[in-house]
Amino acid sequence: MNLEVHLVLRPLGTPTHDNFGLVESKVPGLQVGEILVENEYISVDPYLRGQMDDIDSYIEPFALDKVMGGDAVGRVIASDHPEYSVGEYVAHMLGWRKYAVIRPDDWAKPGEVGEEAINLLRKVDPELAPASAFIGVLGMPGLTAYAGILYVGAVKPTDVVFVSGAAGAVGSLAGQIAKQRGAMVIGSAGSDEKVRLLTHEFGFDSAFNYKNEAPADAIARLAPEGIDVYFDNVGGDHLEAALAAMRRFGRVVCCGYISSYNESETPPGPRNFWNVLDQEVTIRGILVPNHYDKWDAFYREVGPWIRDGRVQYRETVFEGLENAVDAFLGLFTGANIGKMLVKI
Amino acid sequence: MNLEVHLVLRPLGTPTHDNFGLVESKVPGLQVGEILVENEYISVDPYLRGQMDDIDSYIEPFALDKVMGGDAVGRVIASDHPEYSVGEYVAHMLGWRKYAVIRPDDWAKPGEVGEEAINLLRKVDPELAPASAFIGVLGMPGLTAYAGILYVGAVKPTDVVFVSGAAGAVGSLAGQIAKQRGAMVIGSAGSDEKVRLLTHEFGFDSAFNYKNEAPADAIARLAPEGIDVYFDNVGGDHLEAALAAMRRFGRVVCCGYISSYNESETPPGPRNFWNVLDQEVTIRGILVPNHYDKWDAFYREVGPWIRDGRVQYRETVFEGLENAVDAFLGLFTGANIGKMLVKI
Repeated sequence: MNLEVHLVLRPLGTPTHDNFGLVESKVPGLQVGEILVENEYISVDPYLRGQMDDIDSYIEPFALDKVMGGDAVGRVIASDHPEYSVGEYVAHMLGWRKYAVIRPDDWAKPGEVGEEAINLLRKVDPELAPASAFIGVLGMPGLTAYAGILYVGAVKPTDVVFVSGAAGAVGSLAGQIAKQRGAMVIGSAGSDEKVRLLTHEFGFDSAFNYKNEAPADAIARLAPEGIDVYFDNVGGDHLEAALAAMRRFGRVVCCGYISSYNESETPPGPRNFWNVLDQEVTIRGILVPNHYDKWDAFYREVGPWIRDGRVQYRETVFEGLENAVDAFLGLFTGANIGKMLVKI
Repeated sequence: MNLEVHLVLRPLGTPTHDNFGLVESKVPGLQVGEILVENEYISVDPYLRGQMDDIDSYIEPFALDKVMGGDAVGRVIASDHPEYSVGEYVAHMLGWRKYAVIRPDDWAKPGEVGEEAINLLRKVDPELAPASAFIGVLGMPGLTAYAGILYVGAVKPTDVVFVSGAAGAVGSLAGQIAKQRGAMVIGSAGSDEKVRLLTHEFGFDSAFNYKNEAPADAIARLAPEGIDVYFDNVGGDHLEAALAAMRRFGRVVCCGYISSYNESETPPGPRNFWNVLDQEVTIRGILVPNHYDKWDAFYREVGPWIRDGRVQYRETVFEGLENAVDAFLGLFTGANIGKMLVKI
């Protein structure tokens, strides 16, 4: 039998268990050109919250009484496609289910770019890294961090870089890539344990707990001369504080707004927009599908850093699809260190 | 005798006549390497409001009991510098005074770029255009519009462009340059007369009076498919409405925030920052000194458009230095159409 987690009720504000349903179903028989994948890990990500609302966005909202989507990685256990053999591993986006039936010819492949390429199917090599890494540090969050900090943020060795939500999947890699480039890196996180992880294991120059210290105060303390790049996973007072500290020609990478995903009333934006003009700041959003042309460069550059241990990563793993909802909800309470995953 | 307008009291909120004083002084004798310029026009600009406050910004604040600075253009009437002859015209930044003594070797020349080049001295050719144009459509406001719309906004022929404060010196040229590039251009202004000017004389495709219609409603009506470039001279609800309408890879040129220059309490920023991420928008500030390398290209491209009448410009001229304060205060009530100038 297949097991799936469905969206059964659209949330108002913060989701609860009532929004989800665990559903058993039959695994359909393979049609011509299809493969059957047994998922080993699924990824839960903050951006999925947006797809639970029925609003116009860069990705289609999830349908009611259908499976929750998102990254997953698993083993091909049956194949009617000549390029996919039983035993190979693939990462796909069919989300919160045990078995997935995929017609590879309908999917985008690495190198294709843009909105049409959102549904990406990638073969992954479990010799290079554990399967879970390919939906984490070597998956979408990894590529987001890589393209965000290097291409959108254009980080230079002389830069002071501030990463919010820096103990998360994207933030922890963005900060470490900036370190590899020689920048000075400051991180924020929501617990003392995470702050310690940033400075003691991820090599950040400094970090602060935003539950104990306002971002504006912390930045003034840790980067008294200001910052050049702000990698924003949080929004809200983090963004306002970063804009206030921006040096000339600073860059803000808009990657996520976890502070507001569950707000039905959108909070006010940064009051100090004037600084964008005064310091000629560039603010730019990043969505990873438009950086799919960088998969090769990403693997080539970041892969060895992971292998050599120069870049560290963490995973928080919940066991069993029946715990996927708890894993997802935990993202909004900061229950994860590094990538939040569910092992099937 | 020289006549100068001094800053005598820093304003709280909107400036009044009490903040300024008209002062007579002796014209100093020329020292070695100096020239004496008799100003014909001075420029009053919204950005000068910022320099009246004693705060850290990209330009030095004005000192108390010293002259108000800013663009001015005039004729050399005495010279001890071999490269400047009596009868030549120069544009400089010594502001609200009848006579200015300048040591050219201390000033930046066109082509030098950046903060050090803020104090720019340019020779101008009164055969090409009236002297007043060189502190307006062919001066700083003109170069700001040119660099802003073409380099920061990167306008393309297929773009839908929205310009706020479009009847002003910068906005009117930004919109017309976008039209020359083939874009569809929408403008906002603060009176029906200005709106008519935009569509009937400046060639905008459409325009609206933001005093009668909220920017969000007007954009939905005039650009139902959204916009690609927003040239922001206003901030506030204009910026929020533009962000809401941004199409994928849209650009926001942050040029000015006249809606908030006189607010002592900074108003909240745009609530829909989420759209920066969702549409991968780029927001970037422009300050003209960092585009001084484009003076030549600007004259070469825009000069002929002005001469041939393909690009129109307007000036609102107050007569006499004793009316400079009224001209300046008029900027914040929308008293100007096109460039606000004072004829000495």
